[in-house]
Amino acid sequence: MTAIVNISLKQGVLDSQGKAVHHALDSLKFTNVTDVRVGKQIVLQLDTEDKTQAMADVTKMCEEILANTVIEDYKIELH
Amino acid sequence: MTAIVNISLKQGVLDSQGKAVHHALDSLKFTNVTDVRVGKQIVLQLDTEDKTQAMADVTKMCEEILANTVIEDYKIELH
Repeated sequence: MTAIVNISLKQGVLDSQGKAVHHALDSLKFTNVTDVRVGKQIVLQLDTEDKTQAMADVTKMCEEILANTVIEDYKIELH
Repeated sequence: MTAIVNISLKQGVLDSQGKAVHHALDSLKFTNVTDVRVGKQIVLQLDTEDKTQAMADVTKMCEEILANTVIEDYKIELH
């Protein structure tokens, strides 16, 4: 099973990488961009077909190590 | 309109960050993980409602600055 974890900074947390990308896009005349946020996407291959167990495992991974839950949100998709 | 760009290393390109995360998960006894790949997710807010134009613009951004197309693939979703 494949788990896709999207990790993004919480609303209100300054995203300096996003600001830098936005500025770079402006410099290249992409002027119709109003906001940029940069996050991480982690794709995990899991050796299980049990969706409930997989979701529990990946949630635990996010809470313990993948995300910094003080400043980041995470979303998990299973395929 | 919101554009979500997922950027990942091409198959075959060594993903050292993914390897490090995999190793860390192993150390924490998450032993049912067989592979980890780490990529970027860039969320752009665009000041347009024209999907065709937006897709063309974001593709150009990816080719020019967001992705390193030598080693990275990108996928664009519009919402």
